[in-house]
Amino acid sequence: MKKVNIGLIGFGTIGSGVAEVLENRQKFIREHSGLDVAIKWVCDKNHAVLKKVRLGQTKITSNAYDVLRDKNIDIVIELIGGTKEAKDVIVKAIKAKKHVVTANKALLALYGREIFKIADKNSIMVRFGASVGGGIPIIRALREGFISNRLDRIYGIINGTSNFILTKMADGKYDFGKALREAQEKGFAERNPELDISGMDSAHKLAILILIGFRFPINFKDIYVEGIGGIEAGDIEYAKEYGYTIKLLAIAKRNNGRLEARVHPTLLPNAHVLSNVSGIYNAIHIKGDLIGESLFYGEGAGKFPTAGTVVSDIIDIGSRLRTESKDYILVSDSENKLSGIKKIGEIRTRYYARFSAIDKPGVLAKISGILARHNISIASVTQKERKTAQVVPIVMMTHEVLEADMQKAIRTIDNLDIIKDKSIRIKVESE
Amino acid sequence: MKKVNIGLIGFGTIGSGVAEVLENRQKFIREHSGLDVAIKWVCDKNHAVLKKVRLGQTKITSNAYDVLRDKNIDIVIELIGGTKEAKDVIVKAIKAKKHVVTANKALLALYGREIFKIADKNSIMVRFGASVGGGIPIIRALREGFISNRLDRIYGIINGTSNFILTKMADGKYDFGKALREAQEKGFAERNPELDISGMDSAHKLAILILIGFRFPINFKDIYVEGIGGIEAGDIEYAKEYGYTIKLLAIAKRNNGRLEARVHPTLLPNAHVLSNVSGIYNAIHIKGDLIGESLFYGEGAGKFPTAGTVVSDIIDIGSRLRTESKDYILVSDSENKLSGIKKIGEIRTRYYARFSAIDKPGVLAKISGILARHNISIASVTQKERKTAQVVPIVMMTHEVLEADMQKAIRTIDNLDIIKDKSIRIKVESE
Repeated sequence: MKKVNIGLIGFGTIGSGVAEVLENRQKFIREHSGLDVAIKWVCDKNHAVLKKVRLGQTKITSNAYDVLRDKNIDIVIELIGGTKEAKDVIVKAIKAKKHVVTANKALLALYGREIFKIADKNSIMVRFGASVGGGIPIIRALREGFISNRLDRIYGIINGTSNFILTKMADGKYDFGKALREAQEKGFAERNPELDISGMDSAHKLAILILIGFRFPINFKDIYVEGIGGIEAGDIEYAKEYGYTIKLLAIAKRNNGRLEARVHPTLLPNAHVLSNVSGIYNAIHIKGDLIGESLFYGEGAGKFPTAGTVVSDIIDIGSRLRTESKDYILVSDSENKLSGIKKIGEIRTRYYARFSAIDKPGVLAKISGILARHNISIASVTQKERKTAQVVPIVMMTHEVLEADMQKAIRTIDNLDIIKDKSIRIKVESE
Repeated sequence: MKKVNIGLIGFGTIGSGVAEVLENRQKFIREHSGLDVAIKWVCDKNHAVLKKVRLGQTKITSNAYDVLRDKNIDIVIELIGGTKEAKDVIVKAIKAKKHVVTANKALLALYGREIFKIADKNSIMVRFGASVGGGIPIIRALREGFISNRLDRIYGIINGTSNFILTKMADGKYDFGKALREAQEKGFAERNPELDISGMDSAHKLAILILIGFRFPINFKDIYVEGIGGIEAGDIEYAKEYGYTIKLLAIAKRNNGRLEARVHPTLLPNAHVLSNVSGIYNAIHIKGDLIGESLFYGEGAGKFPTAGTVVSDIIDIGSRLRTESKDYILVSDSENKLSGIKKIGEIRTRYYARFSAIDKPGVLAKISGILARHNISIASVTQKERKTAQVVPIVMMTHEVLEADMQKAIRTIDNLDIIKDKSIRIKVESE
């Protein structure tokens, strides 16, 4: 039996879940992996939390360096969160020749390349399956299952909070605020939901998917990010009339040798497999040149789905311990190398747009004239209500247009006297 | 760079696909795995086929023993198909201390336990990702990603031919024969489609999923198998009226310490995530105690999806070559051990049933009387047409009943004079 000693740093929801799984399934894990995984240390700044650790052979500390100093520790599990201290712990662990498992998406999105470089230099394995998709083994699939594929596209619904809110709004009777409150009451959304609804959390995960799937060294700030804050129940309703569902999508797409990398609310055809992913579920839709299209779907968060993935990372490292094992994460695809990022202004998509205009003769002519001057051609337009001299929504679908043109046109339109509220534009994906 | 020498035995569609991928992506694979994979031998009985091999350093032979004798071969790729010769090749390869990659589902369904036992004794790795789901990395997910989970259920749409036929029939205008012919014309179905439409192919794959997912040493013949041959377009139509879609489902389910293992046409609620899996696509829906529900979806067959998976298995073994690596496939879960198979007669489900009866007074009373005597209670019943003294379909949904009772009742009903055709019963799953 191969002995694997781990140090658990951060004993919050996921950390205590990992401890529970390892404790309750010790025998199970031994039988199915040949590994005897023992938690040697639990570290948390919060002394109250440490009291919950069932001791046995486990030592507790509030100082991460106690763990990093211990020569017997094979794997450090970083579950502190945040980017400052967590980065410090991981880098020091790698330099102390300890393998690392982390679920820290923000950290990897911002400093992944740096960390993987240090790990590579030290021949240390870093596993981070739980950083994207909770219980969905998407990272492992991209790193191993699809290793011989050249990816063409990733579409991800990878933020459960946003998807819950959009699903509730689509079911009717919920506006954004009520849907968010329900998400918070049910524990799906944080007290401060900004990271989720701003699209930032999705962007963190997208950065990791790009690094692993496209092997492209993306700078996090190059990802275009737009959250769901501007979506109104009416937009979901109008989109439905056109045959579309609105989802917060994380998109990475090979486009003529460059990469599109963007997170934004997106109209997807109702028949698209991602349109039916509802509530807190996550899904990642991959297109690769060998596999064709593939979808992974499951619980994208939660204590046990995430803890289960952390444990499978531990077992993966354990099974490769004391062997010559390199990660090859940072090695780019030199044959199909992407030359850079396609800027958001250069991207062409179709659009849904909603204008809040005073209902009077000539309004539509004015708006469509501005659109035409910016090379935007309208596929269909509906004035949803008629209330002379009052504000009514004008809703349209465009043909494919350049984002930069769309931005300029909307700025010009929003300056018109007849426009009474910020205009809404949502990109369409229909592949 | 670690050198990995492989011998490819069987150079049909998948075999030549593997050779193409390894050849075209040599550099890519080197960069991303640190492995230099070289095809040392290609073996096929068919001499004409061997002429297509691009030589370089590759030797060709029609005798598999040339490959097995070569001391430099690290991995043997068995793509012969069939169970007799393929088994012989694999067992001899293992005994010659060569690791094995195979896509042979029938072989593993019938002799998997025996092969894994020999592999374990010889400390040899056997990989078979391509045996289920083509390009979908479900085997890897079950073996590694979900390793710390206790599975509760697997639902699989794992035969593309059957799913294509059922989808075409559901779209309307196609009967079974026309749908099958189109599948054959498009190359989705074999000239002899028996293995697919009889449910046997799904059962082979289910046996493998059970072995890996539930770690239960199933005997293939203990799987209940029923194909789609009896389904008529009308059944699909009537099921739709009740809010259901008919799919050929492979089911493995933990049920009070025993395992249900069955393949049969199944009514699934339209809103079920599997109801929307159409055409040749495959999908596997997993329920585990940590991950909750998870779905994998993609192309379940085809040259390149399958070849890609074979190549990722090669890379997986390659990355563990010359390390102490055991498979732990046969080790059962001693804590949550399943005590046996639940026989089909003992299984309780709801049913859709269709009776072809002469339309005359008292017919329904007769049928429902027999059902009642067998403890079968009817949830709803519709006589679809009225044509006095002619044969009309009587369609019903039952409450939950015991399969054994249903079988007996149907036998009795089918013996009635008023019944003019074999009655149809289809199980319902709604979890």
